[in-house]
Amino acid sequence: MPRAPTYAASGVSRPALGRAVRALIEAARYRAPRSHGLALPAPGHYAGLLKVGRETLALTTDTVGTKVLLAEQLGRWEEVGEDAVAINVNDLAAVGARPAGLVDTVLCEAPDPATFAAIGRGLARGLARARCSLLGGESAAVREIVRGFDLGATALGFFPGRRRPILGGRIAPGDVLLGIPSSGFHANGFTLIRRIVRIARVDLHRPRAGARLSVGRELLTATRTYIDASEALADRPFTHGLAHLSGGGVRNLPRIGPNVRFVLDRWGEPPPLARWLQEAGDVRDREMFQTFNMGIGFVAVVAPARANAALRALERAGVRDARSIGTVESGRGVALPEFGLRYEGYT
Amino acid sequence: MPRAPTYAASGVSRPALGRAVRALIEAARYRAPRSHGLALPAPGHYAGLLKVGRETLALTTDTVGTKVLLAEQLGRWEEVGEDAVAINVNDLAAVGARPAGLVDTVLCEAPDPATFAAIGRGLARGLARARCSLLGGESAAVREIVRGFDLGATALGFFPGRRRPILGGRIAPGDVLLGIPSSGFHANGFTLIRRIVRIARVDLHRPRAGARLSVGRELLTATRTYIDASEALADRPFTHGLAHLSGGGVRNLPRIGPNVRFVLDRWGEPPPLARWLQEAGDVRDREMFQTFNMGIGFVAVVAPARANAALRALERAGVRDARSIGTVESGRGVALPEFGLRYEGYT
Repeated sequence: MPRAPTYAASGVSRPALGRAVRALIEAARYRAPRSHGLALPAPGHYAGLLKVGRETLALTTDTVGTKVLLAEQLGRWEEVGEDAVAINVNDLAAVGARPAGLVDTVLCEAPDPATFAAIGRGLARGLARARCSLLGGESAAVREIVRGFDLGATALGFFPGRRRPILGGRIAPGDVLLGIPSSGFHANGFTLIRRIVRIARVDLHRPRAGARLSVGRELLTATRTYIDASEALADRPFTHGLAHLSGGGVRNLPRIGPNVRFVLDRWGEPPPLARWLQEAGDVRDREMFQTFNMGIGFVAVVAPARANAALRALERAGVRDARSIGTVESGRGVALPEFGLRYEGYT
Repeated sequence: MPRAPTYAASGVSRPALGRAVRALIEAARYRAPRSHGLALPAPGHYAGLLKVGRETLALTTDTVGTKVLLAEQLGRWEEVGEDAVAINVNDLAAVGARPAGLVDTVLCEAPDPATFAAIGRGLARGLARARCSLLGGESAAVREIVRGFDLGATALGFFPGRRRPILGGRIAPGDVLLGIPSSGFHANGFTLIRRIVRIARVDLHRPRAGARLSVGRELLTATRTYIDASEALADRPFTHGLAHLSGGGVRNLPRIGPNVRFVLDRWGEPPPLARWLQEAGDVRDREMFQTFNMGIGFVAVVAPARANAALRALERAGVRDARSIGTVESGRGVALPEFGLRYEGYT
């Protein structure tokens, strides 16, 4: 194993994918007439926005990625079913949209009712946490294209009452950053995680030192849903921005505030599981924080004078583990002084 | 090659997939509170329906399936890019929804800017035909899950003005069936098509007798978009039902009318390409009509006294090739008397 594995080295080249995606977006440009709805600009944001009749809607799509390969290895499918909902509704949460409907996609080599039922139970759990309806889905047996399973979903959200999309436009130096803990690695970075597990010959069926669950079960833990947090904050004027720390880790923050610096000076100690993985793979902090959520899965940017009001609103909504993790300063990018890290932006 | 290949024999077992999907749907049951929108029942229909605030919305998702393998073989990606839009907006067309927004999913082994750009050009063409905005997408390099490419999309539609979803509830014996021609095999049945091509040793780069384009180019032809047809009919009270003849061929009709019989007694001669494939693969009519669209890709069910008015409305919208292909009778299922075929329903 090389000294410091990066996400690119584990088989996922972000710059190459970025170039290809930009080529697709450039070629796919088309402007629809107003009679077919009005797409609202939200470049680089977590969900596409569209005004249709009298409603503003948010649409977002994502797949569970290579976490399904861990599910297959462990023969457990409920967690990734729940992930398929959570990763999408959390992107809705990041624009302040309330989840309303979801469609799932299950592509497989061979359809097996027991696996499909387990995925369905996971979907139900995710839907209940997000209070979102399942509107349909697509299932296909395409053994020439997919090895094992591919699992994804698309979620549709709306802005109830007078709520407006929260895109970060009011983020300003002095704002406070509130962090809400993650439930584990969620569904990001699993190509690197699985590489470390393989090379370090980790036994997935045993607990690591100090843990109760097996490593496999810990790694598979379903993604936390941040809808309660978003619903508690999205109607409040003190909420300047919301961010879902998915793939890209803390580098997601510049997506909602490209012209400020996010100084995360009270991050605290990353979760034991993350540190354990980091040690097993001999991975640098720099790579960990730009690949994984490192313990914080969702960030709210709030007006400084109202940070306590925001924390109380979260508590009333049942989100009792939010805490201040930093502040917004003038500048650009992300800084984690506790770890001696700086990032320029989101790539 | 066996005497009469079926879709199941070519690697896609519809009953097995059906069992798995039913297990997933059963397990995924969850009823969201009214504050998160109201899912409207449309069982077995082409799109999920949801009331959000003052708007009714339709959401549908589908992938291009194994047609991408033909695209890869021929090194042409624009057609399947266009398909990814068309197959989804045609499902919206079948509930009378107007397309508003789409998100795409491109999963690949390795991201290549030229291929992504060609897919993007195809998406743009499909979006322009449907007058639909691209709201975002998900692209991932997941070489452990996907061989080559997987290409799909999710489309969001709405019901402008006083329009209501068209679900077939007013279909009655006596109604006239108007058929609108397809542009080829669209994106259905390609596992069987590719099997026939392989076993019959078809040279994809040469035209079949009587054709100008190579067989490969003919097979790859992008899916026709039926939005103009749907928009011309969806606000008219004489329109009792709309059906997209996608995977399952004529067996899609009982989806919109489970308690009537669709008698297709003026289908006419299937397209030369379909007959050529049938002969090359020694496939029975029964299998052809329940796997492919056989020349008609979209069907409108209209009140008998207004069939000519419907044809005129289609003509005014630029849809000049619609024609009467049959009538609704009492009973169940689908009959094609010209071909001596009967089907019980949609499986």
